[in-house]
Amino acid sequence: MSLAERKRQLVRNELTEAALKLLGVQGFEETTIDQMAAAAGVSRRTFFRYFRSKEDVITESLCDHGRRLSQILSARPTTEPPAVALHNTLRAFTDTFWEHPEKSQRLAKATMSTPALRARYLERQFSWRAMLTAELAARMGTDPSADLRPAVLVGVAFAAFDTALMRWVEQDSATDLNALLSECFAVAFP
Amino acid sequence: MSLAERKRQLVRNELTEAALKLLGVQGFEETTIDQMAAAAGVSRRTFFRYFRSKEDVITESLCDHGRRLSQILSARPTTEPPAVALHNTLRAFTDTFWEHPEKSQRLAKATMSTPALRARYLERQFSWRAMLTAELAARMGTDPSADLRPAVLVGVAFAAFDTALMRWVEQDSATDLNALLSECFAVAFP
Repeated sequence: MSLAERKRQLVRNELTEAALKLLGVQGFEETTIDQMAAAAGVSRRTFFRYFRSKEDVITESLCDHGRRLSQILSARPTTEPPAVALHNTLRAFTDTFWEHPEKSQRLAKATMSTPALRARYLERQFSWRAMLTAELAARMGTDPSADLRPAVLVGVAFAAFDTALMRWVEQDSATDLNALLSECFAVAFP
Repeated sequence: MSLAERKRQLVRNELTEAALKLLGVQGFEETTIDQMAAAAGVSRRTFFRYFRSKEDVITESLCDHGRRLSQILSARPTTEPPAVALHNTLRAFTDTFWEHPEKSQRLAKATMSTPALRARYLERQFSWRAMLTAELAARMGTDPSADLRPAVLVGVAFAAFDTALMRWVEQDSATDLNALLSECFAVAFP
């Protein structure tokens, strides 16, 4: 990454962090773009050089996950059956939460408890599911336009994932997210 | 329903029908509120007496489904295990598609293939899932704030539902939606 890119990333992160702190105190609907900009120490104009809307501040970080998840799945040993490979893929995703635990917690809480953000997250997840379905179909040696199994199995995996994430957020992250994920996978793929 | 309410319902339906026909021809993003109003033979001002946005024209009909689905689930015989009761609940929902097959097909196609509408549908489905989870937990005699099973099972059922719906829309409804739903449930609850 060039210095300019790293500088840009730094400001983006600062804005997201500041926005998340505000959200924790006063909720998404009540938080204005001016407040987000002020909290990060930048102008409203600068804000709009980085994000198009206040939703973007929170959900733009979700953009790249589809490709990353597909890569993780494609790297899983082919000996793993679908349920195991999908569990390991989503666990590799939640593992990244520990790199920035407080930020991840705030991000997940804001996303899952604000309807406007949740809608964006669910729509984003929908495209991740399509990418993972293609990858899983390739692993299973089947054609996903004829065989419904890959799409259903990926959907089931995300049903487990969403339930674990919701529970984690509701419990203020007091429990281990990976333990919740394992528990939900055990119910989803008995 | 009073005459005034029925009149109101009539105009709403007319607007939704006209909007769906336009969407089929030119896509959601390209369709304006003025065009929707003109196609239904009403003014822009009248449009806004019925709907707040062009998204609402399509997705507002989704509002009541949560309560309806919960009622259907609560009416299922208690002898049915969760997977069977959820399958029958969602089949009762898709059965209503046959009351207005062409409209349902257009509605489903517009909703699933337009990101802005799909986001709303998924967010709406999220609240249906919460209602069905409460109902399923009651059937299972368990506390959904301690037991993850009801939420996961409802999520799995909707993973099957979404896959069936997407496939139905992709195939231009050439196949039987209920057959697709059964196929997806067989994969989701083996």
